[in-house]
Amino acid sequence: MNTKYDVTAIGNAMVDVIAAADDTFLARQDMAKGAMMLIDEPRAEALYGAMAPGVETSGGSAGNTIAGIASFGGRAAFIGKVAADPLGDVFAHDLRALGADFSTPRLSGGPATGRCLINVTPDGERTMSTYLGAGVELTAHDVSPTLVESSRILYLEGYLFDPHEARRAFAKAAGLAHGAGRSIALTLSDGFVVERHRAGLLGFIDTQVDILFANETEICALFETGDFDAATKAIAGRCAVAAVTRGELGSVILADGERFVIPAYPARNLIDTTGAGDQYAAGFLYGFAGGRSLDICGRLGSLAAAEVIGHYGPRPAVSLRDLAAANGL
Amino acid sequence: MNTKYDVTAIGNAMVDVIAAADDTFLARQDMAKGAMMLIDEPRAEALYGAMAPGVETSGGSAGNTIAGIASFGGRAAFIGKVAADPLGDVFAHDLRALGADFSTPRLSGGPATGRCLINVTPDGERTMSTYLGAGVELTAHDVSPTLVESSRILYLEGYLFDPHEARRAFAKAAGLAHGAGRSIALTLSDGFVVERHRAGLLGFIDTQVDILFANETEICALFETGDFDAATKAIAGRCAVAAVTRGELGSVILADGERFVIPAYPARNLIDTTGAGDQYAAGFLYGFAGGRSLDICGRLGSLAAAEVIGHYGPRPAVSLRDLAAANGL
Repeated sequence: MNTKYDVTAIGNAMVDVIAAADDTFLARQDMAKGAMMLIDEPRAEALYGAMAPGVETSGGSAGNTIAGIASFGGRAAFIGKVAADPLGDVFAHDLRALGADFSTPRLSGGPATGRCLINVTPDGERTMSTYLGAGVELTAHDVSPTLVESSRILYLEGYLFDPHEARRAFAKAAGLAHGAGRSIALTLSDGFVVERHRAGLLGFIDTQVDILFANETEICALFETGDFDAATKAIAGRCAVAAVTRGELGSVILADGERFVIPAYPARNLIDTTGAGDQYAAGFLYGFAGGRSLDICGRLGSLAAAEVIGHYGPRPAVSLRDLAAANGL
Repeated sequence: MNTKYDVTAIGNAMVDVIAAADDTFLARQDMAKGAMMLIDEPRAEALYGAMAPGVETSGGSAGNTIAGIASFGGRAAFIGKVAADPLGDVFAHDLRALGADFSTPRLSGGPATGRCLINVTPDGERTMSTYLGAGVELTAHDVSPTLVESSRILYLEGYLFDPHEARRAFAKAAGLAHGAGRSIALTLSDGFVVERHRAGLLGFIDTQVDILFANETEICALFETGDFDAATKAIAGRCAVAAVTRGELGSVILADGERFVIPAYPARNLIDTTGAGDQYAAGFLYGFAGGRSLDICGRLGSLAAAEVIGHYGPRPAVSLRDLAAANGL
């Protein structure tokens, strides 16, 4: 079949609200620093009311990755649910303005477009409280077979293991992708997601996943170990390619018994780590879809991650295509 | 009467959409660089569709000034109209989170919260296209007499000369303020606003304005001259205090036959000039309400303007109170 897209992603469509906070605020709001927690609407309202003035920007993990791939010049599409409201307009605009496809039907008469309330501490660490809103109304009907079947890679976020209906959409998309001979990539998304769905995630990895993304916390949580080397050995035997990020230590890629250690690009300013993992995945997948070697895929990921942590917001502020060219990639 | 607020402002309540653009884009969209133009809803949709991915942040000239005054630690209130929609929530949140009062009733069943589409070119210059939305539904009913009468200064934006009903709100507020022995400050807002309403603005200045803010373009437009010195001489005779900003040349303050030349603070990075004039007014009015000398008022204005042009967005990213203390003000 014709390959129309490099990557199609399914994820929680989300608008981020980013505000400065300090550690005292996190403690008072009972938030675990660096993590993502799901919140309901009353809690979202109370937390937002307590937060500092913010900036709104399109977000959502897989949506950020698709934006990054499009910024590299890749052909990318996104499947996710927003409401027919102004923040839904913002989300759709920001993907399309980069040339990405986003045509999932909008939700009418239900909850508003989902929001991720992100408190960024002076160390650049982001702590996320997510009100899924319209995002949880994503169903298997929203998964377009032609879209998935015409994409070289299907990319899924672990966050989708939380909403029941989204998980069915997930399973449908995976079946379509493999039926069409496509690759499936998954990110574990968050340590607490792994805690909530360990067995389900391991089962999915064993049967469906070709490329796995995780950070150190997540891969250790998956195998219930504090030993990073043990965790990477355990994952190496379970999927064709695993890319594990380690913040300023860079990343480790495991494939076919090989192990590539990729350094982090030095970031000039650490402002906000939001989107670092998402942009790493963007660079990696863009490279992978283009048939680049795994170490180049990792370097493209590191480059995109370094760019995004140098400013507020989870998506690139410059053209990643130009940035890659300037860095000889 | 008791002075509850330092400054109450009336302005167009607005959420800004900020995106990067180049000069070719401005030319193709037929936009005058650095200016503000009013657009209707279809044009807003078409322009937004053509713009790059953006970031949303609360804006509106007088709202930005109130945010700046609150950030200095001043007691500030805002009167303006937003809709009962998510962007209206964002606008209200961002003012209240700084401790400013905002209690104008929301608009239901009418247009959405107004938006200002801001294209920022690589030279940091912002070009604004404003869809007023709910903002034009501001009426004299929304002007709370107790609020205006209990504020040391009433601050008005020249943009309000455009919508007919808002201008009546403007006149009501001015009458209340003078009746209570308060000062009235006005910003000319934009060169094209001056062109559209020259006679009305001059009449208002002669009869009502104690403190006038303008930039070089606006003050020259007001007196139909290309000669800056002639323009400042002309304004000096017409209101008690005039503060005229000149970008990197700083500002000139004219009062009681005196003329203070205030240097600009060096900005480390020029990223986005949006809000520079608004934050100059914030610093100046905060100082003025506190009884500081005119040259200190000007320096507080310059400091706040230098902060805001160093990042995207029209409102301070740090506490202006802390910044002033760090600079011996």
